[in-house]
Amino acid sequence: MTRNTNDLTIAVLPGDGIGREVMAACLELMTATESVSGGPPLRTATHNAGAQYYLESGDALPATTVEACRSADAILFGSMGWPDVRFPDGTEIIPQLDLRMEFDLYAGVRPIRWFPGLPRILADERAQGIDFVLVREQTEGLFYARGRGKIVDDSEAYDTMQITRKGTARASEYAFGLAERRRARRGTGRVTCVDKANVFTSMAFFRKVFDDVAAKHKDVEADHAYVDAMALNMVKKPWTLDVMVTENMFGDILSDLAAGLVGGMGMAPSADVGDTHALFQPAHGTAPDIAGQGKANPCAMFLSAAMMLDWLAEKHGAPELETRARLIEGAIEETLSSGVATPMEFGGGANCAEMTRATIAALPSAM
Amino acid sequence: MTRNTNDLTIAVLPGDGIGREVMAACLELMTATESVSGGPPLRTATHNAGAQYYLESGDALPATTVEACRSADAILFGSMGWPDVRFPDGTEIIPQLDLRMEFDLYAGVRPIRWFPGLPRILADERAQGIDFVLVREQTEGLFYARGRGKIVDDSEAYDTMQITRKGTARASEYAFGLAERRRARRGTGRVTCVDKANVFTSMAFFRKVFDDVAAKHKDVEADHAYVDAMALNMVKKPWTLDVMVTENMFGDILSDLAAGLVGGMGMAPSADVGDTHALFQPAHGTAPDIAGQGKANPCAMFLSAAMMLDWLAEKHGAPELETRARLIEGAIEETLSSGVATPMEFGGGANCAEMTRATIAALPSAM
Ligand SMILES: CC(C)[C@H](C(=O)O)[C@@H](O)C(=O)O
Ligand SMILES: CC(C)[C@H](C(=O)O)[C@@H](O)C(=O)O
Repeated sequence: MTRNTNDLTIAVLPGDGIGREVMAACLELMTATESVSGGPPLRTATHNAGAQYYLESGDALPATTVEACRSADAILFGSMGWPDVRFPDGTEIIPQLDLRMEFDLYAGVRPIRWFPGLPRILADERAQGIDFVLVREQTEGLFYARGRGKIVDDSEAYDTMQITRKGTARASEYAFGLAERRRARRGTGRVTCVDKANVFTSMAFFRKVFDDVAAKHKDVEADHAYVDAMALNMVKKPWTLDVMVTENMFGDILSDLAAGLVGGMGMAPSADVGDTHALFQPAHGTAPDIAGQGKANPCAMFLSAAMMLDWLAEKHGAPELETRARLIEGAIEETLSSGVATPMEFGGGANCAEMTRATIAALPSAM
Repeated sequence: MTRNTNDLTIAVLPGDGIGREVMAACLELMTATESVSGGPPLRTATHNAGAQYYLESGDALPATTVEACRSADAILFGSMGWPDVRFPDGTEIIPQLDLRMEFDLYAGVRPIRWFPGLPRILADERAQGIDFVLVREQTEGLFYARGRGKIVDDSEAYDTMQITRKGTARASEYAFGLAERRRARRGTGRVTCVDKANVFTSMAFFRKVFDDVAAKHKDVEADHAYVDAMALNMVKKPWTLDVMVTENMFGDILSDLAAGLVGGMGMAPSADVGDTHALFQPAHGTAPDIAGQGKANPCAMFLSAAMMLDWLAEKHGAPELETRARLIEGAIEETLSSGVATPMEFGGGANCAEMTRATIAALPSAM
């Protein structure tokens, strides 16, 4: 689909804690990138949601924000939630889950990549070749149980996992499409179905549907792994991984594990992609321990913005936006690998403002 | 409980693939340890079960084997299952799950410890201090769904997770008891409840029951972590972990992750403990890729036998058996740290027989 890319609108939801800090940094970087690269500007509009806004208004995700997200071309999200700020029933404030359901954002895309300049987490040299993507099915699986759980007599509780053919097929399709695009770049492409088909009916069904989708994508290799074995392999030889697709809860666990391999959540961007909408968010939380101190690492937020630019570029046939995504990634690479600035979470001294300044300075025309 | 420890009987189930190889090695080591240490001998009797036996007899876990396990003082288990050997309905042969249910082995105890001489997996020096235990609830959780899953119209499938007060309380009690014993040795003790209480009713219930148990163990610290954050922390700072208790499926994933941190399943023993029975098993599988080649690393099997000796020592008030457990551990430490033999999986040249010989040679009286 092509359209006039002059009027692309981004709904910006900074949220709480360091979400606000990294979002402010990201908007600065995006503006700087726009002026370096030229091409269509993105119009950003900021909207309320999250724990702080709940305290002020009694509403964690106002309808006006949801509608702004609906009519925007993409959603850029910081992070939300705060310890002890809860709904009256004790549950946490997690608007990101509501938005996933509201806009049917079925593919949770979590790329994990090594950047030169990052501290070594794994001892093996080959860890510098880590470059894989986890596709987390995001509208069902165990999360189907959210809001549906049952407690019987304060003595037992039940939550039900749902796997549908539709849900599994579209997440798998997304994974194969991604593997095909990566194959064009890297020469090889493989999708691994991560499940627990040896024990659960629903997981055997997940694998079966995956196999049906795989049969339509003969150009890309397909294989399977049990989720426990995959957790082990992620630690032992993550450099052998390419694209994985998995159930919602498994994907939640594995994506945090994976982020740890490249230094933590400060380097882990994410995209929640549906057929009509998409939301881009660093995989980290609001980090109450460091919020308000300017210490947050904005890289995951920057990389999420780059994912947004790629998605918009493809959706609207606007290659300038893809160029802009590469500029952002390149500037982060440059900053980290030159050692000009290392984020505080890696033992460097660069706070959020310094990392942002260094990244902006690393954009081509500023060199 | 004390009793005559002269007649302790061990039901030995070697199983399939490398299960048989490491079990043979283990029995050799146990005999050697007995003759070094003195004290009551253990009478071992070997029983049939597994995929190979299923092919021969049509029965994967014969009733005679189950009864032998029931009347034995402990169960020593190799590993079972084989690709493509399946029941007519397509499900895998997993007698270990059946035994967990049959004998109500609710605490899956998975200790993860660094041994000097092992290759560095994590770059951080502090990884050499890894010494934690994961207690996996093992009779319910998502595994409650085994054999109960539903498929509707080949278009959706459901599996239900069950959390009971009883199941959670006894697994938590086990974890606190363990933390107390570790505290006596290490000076500090902490149990972390690993859940997903922010999203699931059953997991909030799990946390609540854990808190009730924690309130009875004020001598040990108690805290909580979400399972995704724990997966990250296991990679980032596993040396800070002590005892964890978690749901069955989460424990399955986290225990494999954890094994990866110390070199893989070849170093990961496990115990499945109930109130009356207990089963001890290396956490690895039958490893079809290397089975029959004598390459398997027997350390996890040896360490599982040491766990069995500790459990028997406590249950029967037989300190000689505890001494024997320490002899086995000490001999493994000695072998690995002196570099006399390094298992093939760590890039050394020692096959199963060589590792076994070196470990036996490292027993005190042989020095
Ligand atoms: C905040 C939390 C509910 C969320 C999830 O579990 O999906 C987060 O961990 C994530 O990975 O996006
Ligand atoms: C073989 C398999 C069913 C088993 C499990 O999932 O419990 C294994 O992975 C384990 O950890 O003991």
